Amino acid sequence: MTASALAGDLGSIVGAANVEVRPAALVPYRSDATFGFSGTPSAVVRPGCVEEVSQILAWANRHGVPVVPRGAGTSLAAGAVPVRGGIVLALTRMNRIESIDPVDLTAVVQPGVTTQELARAAAGLALHYPPDPGSRHVSTLGGNVATNAGGLHGLKYGNTGGYVLGVQAVLADGEVIRAGGRLLKDVAGYDLVRLLTGSEGTLAVLTELTLALRPAPAAAATGLAYFAGLEAAGDAVRGVIGAGILPATLEFLDAKCIRSVEAHARLGLDTTAGAMLLFGDDGGEAEVRRTVAAMADVMRAHGASSVQVATAAAESDALLAARRCALPALSRLGGATMLEDVGVPRSRLPELVRRIDAIAERHEVTMATFGHAGDGNAHPVGCFAPGDAGQRARVAAAFDDIFAAAIELGGTITGEHGVGAAKLPYLEAQLGPRQTALLAAIKRAFDPAGILNPGKLGS
Amino acid sequence: MTASALAGDLGSIVGAANVEVRPAALVPYRSDATFGFSGTPSAVVRPGCVEEVSQILAWANRHGVPVVPRGAGTSLAAGAVPVRGGIVLALTRMNRIESIDPVDLTAVVQPGVTTQELARAAAGLALHYPPDPGSRHVSTLGGNVATNAGGLHGLKYGNTGGYVLGVQAVLADGEVIRAGGRLLKDVAGYDLVRLLTGSEGTLAVLTELTLALRPAPAAAATGLAYFAGLEAAGDAVRGVIGAGILPATLEFLDAKCIRSVEAHARLGLDTTAGAMLLFGDDGGEAEVRRTVAAMADVMRAHGASSVQVATAAAESDALLAARRCALPALSRLGGATMLEDVGVPRSRLPELVRRIDAIAERHEVTMATFGHAGDGNAHPVGCFAPGDAGQRARVAAAFDDIFAAAIELGGTITGEHGVGAAKLPYLEAQLGPRQTALLAAIKRAFDPAGILNPGKLGS
Ligand SMILES: Cc1cc2nc3c(=O)[nH]c(=O)nc-3n(C[C@H](O)[C@H](O)[C@H](O)COP(=O)(O)OP(=O)(O)OC[C@H]3O[C@@H](n4cnc5c(N)ncnc54)[C@H](O)[C@@H]3O)c2cc1C
Ligand SMILES: Cc1cc2nc3c(=O)[nH]c(=O)nc-3n(C[C@H](O)[C@H](O)[C@H](O)COP(=O)(O)OP(=O)(O)OC[C@H]3O[C@@H](n4cnc5c(N)ncnc54)[C@H](O)[C@@H]3O)c2cc1C
Repeated sequence: MTASALAGDLGSIVGAANVEVRPAALVPYRSDATFGFSGTPSAVVRPGCVEEVSQILAWANRHGVPVVPRGAGTSLAAGAVPVRGGIVLALTRMNRIESIDPVDLTAVVQPGVTTQELARAAAGLALHYPPDPGSRHVSTLGGNVATNAGGLHGLKYGNTGGYVLGVQAVLADGEVIRAGGRLLKDVAGYDLVRLLTGSEGTLAVLTELTLALRPAPAAAATGLAYFAGLEAAGDAVRGVIGAGILPATLEFLDAKCIRSVEAHARLGLDTTAGAMLLFGDDGGEAEVRRTVAAMADVMRAHGASSVQVATAAAESDALLAARRCALPALSRLGGATMLEDVGVPRSRLPELVRRIDAIAERHEVTMATFGHAGDGNAHPVGCFAPGDAGQRARVAAAFDDIFAAAIELGGTITGEHGVGAAKLPYLEAQLGPRQTALLAAIKRAFDPAGILNPGKLGS
Repeated sequence: MTASALAGDLGSIVGAANVEVRPAALVPYRSDATFGFSGTPSAVVRPGCVEEVSQILAWANRHGVPVVPRGAGTSLAAGAVPVRGGIVLALTRMNRIESIDPVDLTAVVQPGVTTQELARAAAGLALHYPPDPGSRHVSTLGGNVATNAGGLHGLKYGNTGGYVLGVQAVLADGEVIRAGGRLLKDVAGYDLVRLLTGSEGTLAVLTELTLALRPAPAAAATGLAYFAGLEAAGDAVRGVIGAGILPATLEFLDAKCIRSVEAHARLGLDTTAGAMLLFGDDGGEAEVRRTVAAMADVMRAHGASSVQVATAAAESDALLAARRCALPALSRLGGATMLEDVGVPRSRLPELVRRIDAIAERHEVTMATFGHAGDGNAHPVGCFAPGDAGQRARVAAAFDDIFAAAIELGGTITGEHGVGAAKLPYLEAQLGPRQTALLAAIKRAFDPAGILNPGKLGS
């Protein structure tokens, strides 16, 4: 199909102003936040309502044209990259918060609302939307649900998936379905809400989300502790859980991360430390004071060299800044970074990080690791000069070994970022051939023509 | 196939002692806890390990024989009834708790372990397995997961599904897969763990479960409040949520339930009240004292005629007894009971119960309602003389209207009990034809020959 025929067909659905086919205008849609992946879309189309999404999909299904749903394009797994071409379906115009119900504790939103917009609107009503991926300033709720995104508070509050009560979704042929609703409990049928959650745009396009909210916690506090190494920090994590505490925050940075963050952001961190834990909790004021003090004690009992606690919001944010700017800081190290997302049972995290270090050394690459200590989810970051193909290949080879190590430790190749195009080649090593075939069968049940985000999950 | 050929084939897999084909021995497997449903199984087989389950399914798949997985048979939706005959696969011999890990906060169990056995084993390690269906003394964890069972503490803690981290499952052709694991976060692939959760034995047989545990709460307290009617109780529920409290317990009984329970159990309830709320919380001692006192204030502010609070475990249990024995008490009323399980958004529960009362009156049937006020999940119970076909038909007709009312209020025909054979005829009214067809397509992707629990979900 020629570019102008495409523009004409799609323009008749969404209006000419909401279709782009000029190559220059398509450049931002060639890639997402993942290093080294790009595609060649033939158009980007920006629907304004579910009816338009429906018509676009019906059209694409008829013509066998791939459709790549896209929110903010912050995917770290090349989930939003049009690796097989086709049209990018940008959902950012559908950005209305439809309603927030303080009795049902639910929000109904369009998929293009950002995580932060919802969190703010909820906070204005003394409500709390807990999932907070690092990208929350820009990431869309559609993207968060499509990837079942995690965040800094998953240990206590769970991931995005725990907050999805209902969806409106458009199937590959343009039919619109609703699953779930403003209900805490609904077991009528297979759990399509949860099947679509984390399906990365390969089974349906999410056009409306019903999300659970919680009462806003009255108080919050954050603490920071330094350790000689990750073993000691891991013991402290065990100690916290063993003390009967399931805190809101339990994050770690290794020595290399601490030093990069300090070089980048000058936060006054202890650059001689071998590891750092950020811990924190929220809830009733007395309860928070109690749990954070108890965690500080556990840190000291496990040899923390220094423990700070902040209860004021600004101070808390300052402590968390070390974790929040780990990735930007590391990108300064070598120029380019590849970030990974392996997970293991919480008890095996120190062993995983030890193996990551050994693997990095063996491949002679610079690698630093931070992540969610409470969740057992580690983000090793490989740093390299962008132009150095050899370095880059060595980082990639190191990641291959890291995936194998995570699987061997009973873990996963992706804890929260998703499979996308980036992890697809590794998926079968984790799931086995039969389960991989089952995913493909589910994909076919939803999308027989294979138009939805091909080259990703289910392909 | 003759009974003796069947006994021979199955006996060669599980040993002759673990197969029954004699009609008298099969009587207990003809039905479950659902009134009015039964089937005619040709055998019951009791495997002792996953390999035996695998061989049984491979055999059944080859011969096109239906297989009905069964735990304790407490289903209230005829989920475990062999409505198309075939063999009942009783999983109660696979009843080992494999391990409990206090650092990962996980338990690995075989499917035949009862809910209560796990809760007790966890409590022995100062850990907490929150899901507690009313049937927990006997219901199996396999059955709980297969139905995504709820319980008395779903508002704060969620349902069974929120605790399923991983499964080992045998597919219809006998292949064994593992999905998820001892991981809090794992987004590698479509969420098969959640798809199998609540799939009611129609997609796979669950042979091992990895379940999440929590630290045991230090304290708990329960309160009871009487109201003039369900409107006032509903306002009090709004008041609790509005006060920023998400309590562990928030249950209701209507006037007819209160009177039946009192007649049956002599607990000293106020039989002049129009409605009763049970409320409670658990957690840190100070926090529990604060939230339960705040809830008691809310109850009074909304006109509760009397409010009692119990902090000792025995007293708490005494208050909860009113809720726990609602169903047995109601069965005394007419002799037989049919129990339903509709759900609506929390804010619409008073409206739902008002409609239930009007519908019962219109159909001239005795109906009482109790349930989970916090979750918006109501259990209307129709009472009738077992031999009175006319009465029974009127109860069934009233339920038809109640399902329609729940759907109209944005709700569900089943909040927690599941679809089974009992609700299947009503499912399409809630989901629509396209979504129903999608369920069937998913079913075919897993079980092309349709041997797993036919006549239920996906059929
Ligand atoms: C700095 C940074 C920090 C991050 N921190 C985290 C973190 O803490 N935790 C975490 O889990 N992730 C994190 N991420 C990854 C990413 O932000 C999340 O995956 C996020 O949820 C993606 O949202 P998005 O709107 O950008 O989606 P996109 O990147 O546009 O799309 C992501 C995937 O979802 C699909 N999709 C998007 N919208 C829809 C829709 N409406 N319907 C169907 N499919 C759709 C796309 O096809 C694609 O497969 C981070 C990324 C960055 C760049
Ligand atoms: C007195 C009473 C109180 C109840 N209270 C509640 C309540 O509060 N909340 C609630 O949600 N339910 C409740 N129920 C319903 C019922 O107890 C639950 O649904 C329970 O989870 C069923 O467990 P079971 O072991 O008896 O399963 P069964 O009744 O034997 O089976 C239930 C379903 O699960 C399937 N199944 C069982 N085991 C497996 C397996 N290993 N693999 C695959 N499929 C399997 C069966 O095929 C069937 O479809 C109650 C029932 C009674 C009788």
